[in-house]
Amino acid sequence: MFDTSAMVQRMLDVEAALTWAQFDCGRIEHQQATALAEACRVDNFDVPALLNEARRSGSLVVPLVAQLTHIVAARDPLAAKHVHANSTSQDIIDTAMVLATRDALSLIERDLSTLIHALLLLARTHAAQPMLSRTLMQPAAVQPFGLKVLNWLQPLQRSRAALVARAQPALVLQFGGPAGAFGWANAQERELVQALGHRLGLPVPDGAWHTQRDEWVRLGCELAILCGACGKLARDWSLMSQAEVGELHWGGLPGAGASSAMPHKRNPVAALMGVAAATRAPLRAGGMLLGMVQEHERALGAWHVELAEWGDLVLSAAGSLAALSSAAQGLYIDVERMRQHIESQNGLIFSQPVTELLSQVLGRPLAKQLMAHACEACRLRHRHLREVLLETLSDVADWPPQLNDALSRIFDVEALATSMAKCIEPAIETLWMASSATLLTEETE
Amino acid sequence: MFDTSAMVQRMLDVEAALTWAQFDCGRIEHQQATALAEACRVDNFDVPALLNEARRSGSLVVPLVAQLTHIVAARDPLAAKHVHANSTSQDIIDTAMVLATRDALSLIERDLSTLIHALLLLARTHAAQPMLSRTLMQPAAVQPFGLKVLNWLQPLQRSRAALVARAQPALVLQFGGPAGAFGWANAQERELVQALGHRLGLPVPDGAWHTQRDEWVRLGCELAILCGACGKLARDWSLMSQAEVGELHWGGLPGAGASSAMPHKRNPVAALMGVAAATRAPLRAGGMLLGMVQEHERALGAWHVELAEWGDLVLSAAGSLAALSSAAQGLYIDVERMRQHIESQNGLIFSQPVTELLSQVLGRPLAKQLMAHACEACRLRHRHLREVLLETLSDVADWPPQLNDALSRIFDVEALATSMAKCIEPAIETLWMASSATLLTEETE
Amino acid sequence: MFDTSAMVQRMLDVEAALTWAQFDCGRIEHQQATALAEACRVDNFDVPALLNEARRSGSLVVPLVAQLTHIVAARDPLAAKHVHANSTSQDIIDTAMVLATRDALSLIERDLSTLIHALLLLARTHAAQPMLSRTLMQPAAVQPFGLKVLNWLQPLQRSRAALVARAQPALVLQFGGPAGAFGWANAQERELVQALGHRLGLPVPDGAWHTQRDEWVRLGCELAILCGACGKLARDWSLMSQAEVGELHWGGLPGAGASSAMPHKRNPVAALMGVAAATRAPLRAGGMLLGMVQEHERALGAWHVELAEWGDLVLSAAGSLAALSSAAQGLYIDVERMRQHIESQNGLIFSQPVTELLSQVLGRPLAKQLMAHACEACRLRHRHLREVLLETLSDVADWPPQLNDALSRIFDVEALATSMAKCIEPAIETLWMASSATLLTEETE
Amino acid sequence: MFDTSAMVQRMLDVEAALTWAQFDCGRIEHQQATALAEACRVDNFDVPALLNEARRSGSLVVPLVAQLTHIVAARDPLAAKHVHANSTSQDIIDTAMVLATRDALSLIERDLSTLIHALLLLARTHAAQPMLSRTLMQPAAVQPFGLKVLNWLQPLQRSRAALVARAQPALVLQFGGPAGAFGWANAQERELVQALGHRLGLPVPDGAWHTQRDEWVRLGCELAILCGACGKLARDWSLMSQAEVGELHWGGLPGAGASSAMPHKRNPVAALMGVAAATRAPLRAGGMLLGMVQEHERALGAWHVELAEWGDLVLSAAGSLAALSSAAQGLYIDVERMRQHIESQNGLIFSQPVTELLSQVLGRPLAKQLMAHACEACRLRHRHLREVLLETLSDVADWPPQLNDALSRIFDVEALATSMAKCIEPAIETLWMASSATLLTEETE
Repeated sequence: MFDTSAMVQRMLDVEAALTWAQFDCGRIEHQQATALAEACRVDNFDVPALLNEARRSGSLVVPLVAQLTHIVAARDPLAAKHVHANSTSQDIIDTAMVLATRDALSLIERDLSTLIHALLLLARTHAAQPMLSRTLMQPAAVQPFGLKVLNWLQPLQRSRAALVARAQPALVLQFGGPAGAFGWANAQERELVQALGHRLGLPVPDGAWHTQRDEWVRLGCELAILCGACGKLARDWSLMSQAEVGELHWGGLPGAGASSAMPHKRNPVAALMGVAAATRAPLRAGGMLLGMVQEHERALGAWHVELAEWGDLVLSAAGSLAALSSAAQGLYIDVERMRQHIESQNGLIFSQPVTELLSQVLGRPLAKQLMAHACEACRLRHRHLREVLLETLSDVADWPPQLNDALSRIFDVEALATSMAKCIEPAIETLWMASSATLLTEETE
Repeated sequence: MFDTSAMVQRMLDVEAALTWAQFDCGRIEHQQATALAEACRVDNFDVPALLNEARRSGSLVVPLVAQLTHIVAARDPLAAKHVHANSTSQDIIDTAMVLATRDALSLIERDLSTLIHALLLLARTHAAQPMLSRTLMQPAAVQPFGLKVLNWLQPLQRSRAALVARAQPALVLQFGGPAGAFGWANAQERELVQALGHRLGLPVPDGAWHTQRDEWVRLGCELAILCGACGKLARDWSLMSQAEVGELHWGGLPGAGASSAMPHKRNPVAALMGVAAATRAPLRAGGMLLGMVQEHERALGAWHVELAEWGDLVLSAAGSLAALSSAAQGLYIDVERMRQHIESQNGLIFSQPVTELLSQVLGRPLAKQLMAHACEACRLRHRHLREVLLETLSDVADWPPQLNDALSRIFDVEALATSMAKCIEPAIETLWMASSATLLTEETE
Repeated sequence: MFDTSAMVQRMLDVEAALTWAQFDCGRIEHQQATALAEACRVDNFDVPALLNEARRSGSLVVPLVAQLTHIVAARDPLAAKHVHANSTSQDIIDTAMVLATRDALSLIERDLSTLIHALLLLARTHAAQPMLSRTLMQPAAVQPFGLKVLNWLQPLQRSRAALVARAQPALVLQFGGPAGAFGWANAQERELVQALGHRLGLPVPDGAWHTQRDEWVRLGCELAILCGACGKLARDWSLMSQAEVGELHWGGLPGAGASSAMPHKRNPVAALMGVAAATRAPLRAGGMLLGMVQEHERALGAWHVELAEWGDLVLSAAGSLAALSSAAQGLYIDVERMRQHIESQNGLIFSQPVTELLSQVLGRPLAKQLMAHACEACRLRHRHLREVLLETLSDVADWPPQLNDALSRIFDVEALATSMAKCIEPAIETLWMASSATLLTEETE
Repeated sequence: MFDTSAMVQRMLDVEAALTWAQFDCGRIEHQQATALAEACRVDNFDVPALLNEARRSGSLVVPLVAQLTHIVAARDPLAAKHVHANSTSQDIIDTAMVLATRDALSLIERDLSTLIHALLLLARTHAAQPMLSRTLMQPAAVQPFGLKVLNWLQPLQRSRAALVARAQPALVLQFGGPAGAFGWANAQERELVQALGHRLGLPVPDGAWHTQRDEWVRLGCELAILCGACGKLARDWSLMSQAEVGELHWGGLPGAGASSAMPHKRNPVAALMGVAAATRAPLRAGGMLLGMVQEHERALGAWHVELAEWGDLVLSAAGSLAALSSAAQGLYIDVERMRQHIESQNGLIFSQPVTELLSQVLGRPLAKQLMAHACEACRLRHRHLREVLLETLSDVADWPPQLNDALSRIFDVEALATSMAKCIEPAIETLWMASSATLLTEETE
């Protein structure tokens, strides 16, 4: 999508549109415009030579314009003088980047919808399934699987909306001419700019953004945030699918995750891609932000920094989403392992609500002290916290035995998960309605 | 603002508000609530001891709760059991960060308004003043000073709006309890969460955001974008105020920019701070983005990464804006130097529009060839491009002498700047109206 | 170590040493030198006022010199004129940073020795203990625990040597005077520089390094590499100590890893600190590297970027090592769980050596095909790979039954681990000798 | 150098060498080895198909081995079973990266020698030429041009030595087999590893470095440091070659720095590339450092992060050096402009040594006060500091008029530069000898 050949074609698309915009403004004859526009095909160009010569001028556009002029002149000498008129390298490259990004974003949005939909299906199927919640990678408490998925979904859903919002002011025409001032001098200039925007289907901003990179960087940061949200998902999947945890299994097509050496392996490739993208993207976004410090009317270096980061940032997001959305459709969860992991905790994961109950009756200091001893006893003697506590509390004068039932109910895993799932359901259903509507719209289109 | 002592007080503010929220829900008596809330003053605490003990638990809150319980128990033993109820370290720290950030943002918004206003005053005073535009740090063309300022202003103006928009969903309550699920189990939990949000004046989101960092990171990225926009400004100012350029001078209070060794120096400290912040902030934003990859229900490390980045990110933005907004009020420009730099270019900076004119008549290849020779001749013999061209063209058969006037008009610096300034004026005036309205509102408040 | 008060004292140490260096060169009387040097105690200074005034000059040294001059003048007016002589802000701050770093490095080296020693003890105790090796977080094969530890140790050992090597040219005097040229003009200047280096116990480089940051950045990168090596360790520990894996347990002092809410938890705080440092340090090193792009004889901003990164980089390394070296002394491994995890793999983890054996006899394509089927059968029917294979191969005409023994031997976990441990032993012993020698030397000192 | 096609060939080179190493160890017949090795040419492979299939397995090697096996099987079925024997994807890719890097480094070292040599020529020609030194982008003092160049040279010279030192332990064989333990089990394994290292001309380290990335990252950091040293140079060149400064001019080949729109421009492309590389490289090094946090025996994601950073890091360094070393050979300096900029400072840049002289006689407080007034007077009335001071001091009772001569001598620009140049000369000559020796050696080779 952002490889050299594809980008050269995008640049030529801009040069062609510029030609037709000149035609729209009566600055060129139809015959010349046709000759020029028809020359704008990457097959006509010597791409390795472009790359080689670009080193001298620091820009791919300088040799591109030279080759284009040469090609056009051979076909229609009168047309050659209109090549690249009023334009500068940055106009061509920035606008080509916008066009490529517009296409990439529609893939990203499609895959993001698919991912959200697949997660919603999972959430609806197993909403009330109890599982461990884990903090600092240690068992903490019990939660319904629906809440786990909701925590994955909410950031993805927000990213979907934010991407659309950030793309709107970022995916616009760049056309400021050699020193960024084209369009500010008179009505004829503005007319050409408008015509070019129209030809490319791109909105025309209030002046060039040669050194005003904020809207572009905002979109870049949003892509990095999407990578981050996917990275959290991917990290969780990689942890849940460890052999020793086994709460989550990867289905997928045959061959997915094959190892070059170990036939028994199915590597969690989608998780790998999600984590890698979430590690790379912050550095790319950092590069975009660093690139904002631009000298005068065109930067010495900062814009070039940006160019190197952008393609990789977009591809990281697109690759991460493609892998994760595809994998999400084959995921299945192992409720038996979830149950086992809860049971093997011997009730310790309810230490916090139990402490709250004890605190209300016995005060926090005594409650904490009792719990510290009880937890230690559970660990050493492999006993269940409920039993240890009931024993211990029978010796505590201030503890009313009629609260023993309330104490025992805290340990009711199913009841807890079911009650929480009921609370979560509306949030899931709201996302489901939104997701179904989106998918419907996309299919109609 | 984010130093240890200030942050400990913020955390205690959250603990106090939690106490009052418990009171609002009928979970604690007024007397105990008062005792607990009154203990929540940093002066009561041994901050170095907190820092020291925090190393063992990896969290400042663990020893803070211990000290607080101790202090409260000494005053009202019944109150002690309510300390930190239902809460977890991350609830206290995240919410404290939100409170500190809310205050910092109001300073940032104030300084941003001041900076925008000062720039608008500059722009309105010298809107049509011709000056060089420079690309890749070399003279490129002529522009009115108003356009230079407009290119600084537009990103700042967008940052002002975006900061408000991003802050809204980010400056919210964090309260998910030990494993992030508090508030999802039943109505009583939700009631407490709502009460806490009300006490702190913070909106209550749809569930905790312990591992959903996207809205928080979005605000962080926006702060880094603001630093970037300020960095561009600062870099331009540092370049324009070089002794050899001298287009911009720093006024400011006596002592501003003093050197410890060289009495003649007035260092451009505000530019330094703007550039430094724009270099640091991308790395801090990168850290925030990296921190999004969080394990399960609370990360092992990633949240702690975030904590270290956030304070410095906010302070970078605040410090950069404070310095630049203060400096902007003392800046003055040197129109004489601007004029000299244009003149010393001997018309070369008009090479692009001249080439366009020649191309229309003679075709682009010949025009480019003539121009290359003319530019070289100007440089070698220190002559003006207009004169060299008129001489050269007198030998070119295809060149109609009646176009010599049009050619000469291209070099009319004042006419060009005036015409461009007229185009720019509406954009400046729109910003001016918006800025005046903002300042008025702020004063009224 | 790098907090404001400590750094102000370091700067004053440099000012005091500068005074004595002047005395050594006969530029100041002993009485005045004494008066000046005695004033150089942070208790004499108003640190908040320094911070406040530093904003105007962009440097802490400007107000520091002003306060110092004031203090000295009150004691001995003749001494006041010698304050800060020939020096510039950057000389004072850079040298103070060097002094603080020298102290921090000795702590880091001590903790690194302790960590290496603790790991060597673990390795020697359980060198031949078989455990799973895991790639992409999935079971891959069997390895002895000794190899796991060796992979942790080798980078740490290299870091120890590299830190010493990088520190030598980095921990040197900075003294270039206002524009960095002091010391280049004549023998008197060089004499003063040498005297200052002597007083501070710092080598004197060949000229100032005001804008030559490479040796300093090299040391910074080395600290980040150390954080990375520790981060790998910490990540492994966090994975191995998951409840579901349980191959590694944290001992440690009571209270270590306590949660503010959940009494049953023992959070792996050291792992958290190791991972967080390994995520932060790369960004700090990135900042140091970015800071190398310095303008002329002192940068506008880049040096200030560095200042903000350095302290945090050193503290990240020091904090990570302190936590991990302390935790390492309390770690114990659970050989039973290691064995269980191997067994639960049903021989699948030997798929690669089995494939190699089959390939030699049957060719790789057929071997791969057989193995793919056998692995699938093992997974579906929970059978051991050895059994499935022996059954399958009995139907394969080209398979000589006399190889069945060789095939079975591949699955001998103990034999494999023992044989590998024997290979690894010399490497462990070499490290052990080096480590013991180091500890011995440190004790003697 | 690191594009897909080139990297695929490098991987095939490793597969071919592995085949010959098997032959060396008597594991394969000569005929089969020949058949296999001859298949290892990228032209035989469908590269787009490799890329496409790599997405499923997360590794280019999985489909590469499949295609290679297919190709070999068609030629010699017996040879097919030896493809990729004992090896894993990471062995092939890491070793291929090492081979590509070895070649890139020899280019980098060549260009670095050229750059150093060109700078030394400049330094020797204009060693004593006085010019402004500038701090915070403002005139600070006077220095000889030789010192300016020496500050560029010293870090480059150190980078040259450090690159060689860091490359030695980094450019080594990677061969650990599927789970990183190959070579540790028995003498046969070690024999194969040694044979492979021998075939590739790569040293064999003490075990695989699948997750021990420190030596590789060390080399990466060193490349980033080199980019930083080049970035400082490039930034200075861009500032010195501003039209308004004009102390440095770019020669170079025709067409270098051409603009696509403005015929008069000669863009400082080499400076642009140097600055851009110095901004990108820190982020790439940051990515390498982040990648060190690897899970168990092969990381989920972290190694893939590294892969994406490495190529760009090496290319940044290579591209920056190629551009700067080429430009350095065409640079010339403008001594007249250097002189003008000094003169236009009216002696203010000597404010520091003058203050030192006055302090010795009048005490620092009075000296500072006099200087503040004198500097202000110079600026307002455009007078020379020497004249203003002599006038002022004639009214100061404590000032002995016989010191007026000493005072005046401070302002002798030529004397100062000459004396400093004499001090610097030995350092330059030492570098010159080293550089000439290096060039001589390279030519001989």
